[in-house]
Amino acid sequence: MPQRVLTGITTTGTLHLGNYVGAIRPAIAASRAPGVESFFFMADFHALIKCDEPDRLAHSSRAIAATWLAAGLDADRVTFYRQSDVPEIPELTWLLTCVTAKGQMNRAHAYKAAVDAAVAAGEEPDAHVTMGLFSYPVLMAADILMFNAHRVPVGKDQVQHIEMTRDIAQRFNHLFGQGRELFTLPEAQVDAEMELLPGLDGRKMSKSYDNVIPLFEGGAQALKDAVARIVTDSKLPGEPKEPEGQALVTIYDAFATPEQRAAFRAALRGGLGWGEAKQQLVALIDGQIGPMRERYASLMAHPEQLEAVLQAGAAKARAIAVPFLQQLRAAVGLRPYTATATAATAKASKAALPVFKQYREGDGRFYFKLLSAGGELLLQSIGFEQGREAGQWVARLKREGWVADAPVQREASEADITAALAAFQDD
Amino acid sequence: MPQRVLTGITTTGTLHLGNYVGAIRPAIAASRAPGVESFFFMADFHALIKCDEPDRLAHSSRAIAATWLAAGLDADRVTFYRQSDVPEIPELTWLLTCVTAKGQMNRAHAYKAAVDAAVAAGEEPDAHVTMGLFSYPVLMAADILMFNAHRVPVGKDQVQHIEMTRDIAQRFNHLFGQGRELFTLPEAQVDAEMELLPGLDGRKMSKSYDNVIPLFEGGAQALKDAVARIVTDSKLPGEPKEPEGQALVTIYDAFATPEQRAAFRAALRGGLGWGEAKQQLVALIDGQIGPMRERYASLMAHPEQLEAVLQAGAAKARAIAVPFLQQLRAAVGLRPYTATATAATAKASKAALPVFKQYREGDGRFYFKLLSAGGELLLQSIGFEQGREAGQWVARLKREGWVADAPVQREASEADITAALAAFQDD
Repeated sequence: MPQRVLTGITTTGTLHLGNYVGAIRPAIAASRAPGVESFFFMADFHALIKCDEPDRLAHSSRAIAATWLAAGLDADRVTFYRQSDVPEIPELTWLLTCVTAKGQMNRAHAYKAAVDAAVAAGEEPDAHVTMGLFSYPVLMAADILMFNAHRVPVGKDQVQHIEMTRDIAQRFNHLFGQGRELFTLPEAQVDAEMELLPGLDGRKMSKSYDNVIPLFEGGAQALKDAVARIVTDSKLPGEPKEPEGQALVTIYDAFATPEQRAAFRAALRGGLGWGEAKQQLVALIDGQIGPMRERYASLMAHPEQLEAVLQAGAAKARAIAVPFLQQLRAAVGLRPYTATATAATAKASKAALPVFKQYREGDGRFYFKLLSAGGELLLQSIGFEQGREAGQWVARLKREGWVADAPVQREASEADITAALAAFQDD
Repeated sequence: MPQRVLTGITTTGTLHLGNYVGAIRPAIAASRAPGVESFFFMADFHALIKCDEPDRLAHSSRAIAATWLAAGLDADRVTFYRQSDVPEIPELTWLLTCVTAKGQMNRAHAYKAAVDAAVAAGEEPDAHVTMGLFSYPVLMAADILMFNAHRVPVGKDQVQHIEMTRDIAQRFNHLFGQGRELFTLPEAQVDAEMELLPGLDGRKMSKSYDNVIPLFEGGAQALKDAVARIVTDSKLPGEPKEPEGQALVTIYDAFATPEQRAAFRAALRGGLGWGEAKQQLVALIDGQIGPMRERYASLMAHPEQLEAVLQAGAAKARAIAVPFLQQLRAAVGLRPYTATATAATAKASKAALPVFKQYREGDGRFYFKLLSAGGELLLQSIGFEQGREAGQWVARLKREGWVADAPVQREASEADITAALAAFQDD
């Protein structure tokens, strides 16, 4: 089974070149690694904790989704979805809420920081704390456990939340797993060498320092204007310049090949003027960012395309979440009244699993069907030219559960089919 | 608009005659009052807070649902559903979580009682508090606000939760309503004269006193055996007896007409023996409970019938919850990326509403259609014999939003239709 890596994307604010170099570009590169199944989600339920400006929230989410796609996130390869399009996530949040100790939330850094700030200001400890801020680690646990992610790339300040997720998962497994690990325990992946881009003034690029180079906003002209304001020393053209320690050079490095880096340094040492150097930097960045900016503009101009990508992503995510939540609901006791099986009989009946049958018909085509443990027909495939195609679909249905576009006819209720397919995933 | 009354049903434990007389019977009677639209839900998400025994939870929920139906709850007249079948409820819970002050939860009686008990035992205040117990008032607010209930019958200990619900609703209205009342503020309805049935020993009937008469469990024989154990005075047959203050008489009263009550008292005063009196009591109770017990046994023997009732109830509940949640999501900023309308343009476009048109065709039948604000056809009805029928459907669609079994053909996406119908409900 491939390693599942889950990345949450903050859906508020606007993005600058530092976000691109430090977060977006490496995450997209990592999603292309072999043996990795990547999940990227727009964390818009989380955004509600801090943002009560609906229009801003809606606009930011759209712009940031467009940015990631424009920057090269391959929505066919990864699962890219809005958290709020997966209703199984808030439902799982409630199941996890019931097994989470309040004492653990009392110790969360973000909560404690809010309390300390209030106390320092002479206010009630919980003066500015909403239940959203306080419960946020439970929602985060649901984000991760819903897809049984193995790894979660996070900043250092988020490591504690992954530990909480592990605790919650362990408790749930212990209470309801009957010896099985319903949830995978995720690992925090802290990127030690996250690339920090300097801003115009040499400090870390950050909106709070007002020293950012915009990513797409304002087009090529805004890029040029910002680069023109990068602080350099006052050496004139023709004078040899020391490249190391110059913000301009560090920014150049972030977009350059080793050869380009060496040539740029040599040119500066050889007297290249800062004005000319800035033109080279603009050309370098715009060579990479320019085509993205065009894709971004196109996605923003065609919200229906963007929406379609996110909808497809939600369907992919829910193909996992729906059957898994059904399994979790059954584990805690939320079962249809027709599910008379107690835990004991459920265990006994595990021996009798639903079964896929593959066969060839008189028409020369290859077929498969899914039969329930009791022999009832659940799914009937179309005929395939190649036996291999039938086999691949069987494997995919076993692996992923119900797939909306599977070339099959349903012969029983969706609930029965989903439940039968979930049985394969238990193993 | 009828008054919406919402009643939550605890899904754990087994029921006795005191529950029937004190809670089930009056609630069912109230649901038959004119001008009342009743919602009854199995509070199984709440049950998870206290119960980590999945089989018990599943069995109790089934038995208690069967009990209410057997006792006469009319699932056609009311909306009877499992909380856990409405995924919009946990989703709304998260939206409300983000506007709930933690300080308010700190003051909840149930939480404070748990803290006091822990402190008294020398433990950490939050030693036995889960986030489920702590967040429970937010889930309860979602239960109520999801359906904009006007009244919620509760015990005195729950009045505080209704006040919290009002606070949460007010805050949400203030932040996101743009002057509209998205949520109705519910009123707690505390039944002052709730009938308390005495148990076998004259104290309040309660499992903790081991003095209960079972409702259905054990059949007529168990009823007879329990009644035989009701404590009376030791007067012999033939001796005049004082009926007032006798538990047996109070229990008799709970099932008797005024005429029966008078006759029973007269007979006791005239010397009726306690043994004979108990036989009369058994006959009286079994005359009413017996047929219910049979319906109960039948429902328990046919879980598929019970399940079908709950599924139909969930569909009814979701016909309200789905479009309403969509409206609430849009209000907080969780919108499809194609919804480019900002608050300002949305306000401007309020003048241009979708419109229902009713008309008669050449075939003599009456039709209606729903057009978007821009004149696009959204819904086309079938032809009705009576113009009144068409008018009633239009009124219902305006009032309730999308109705699954409406006799119309959809001519646009469900999202567009739901959104258009929601516009009528805003007014």
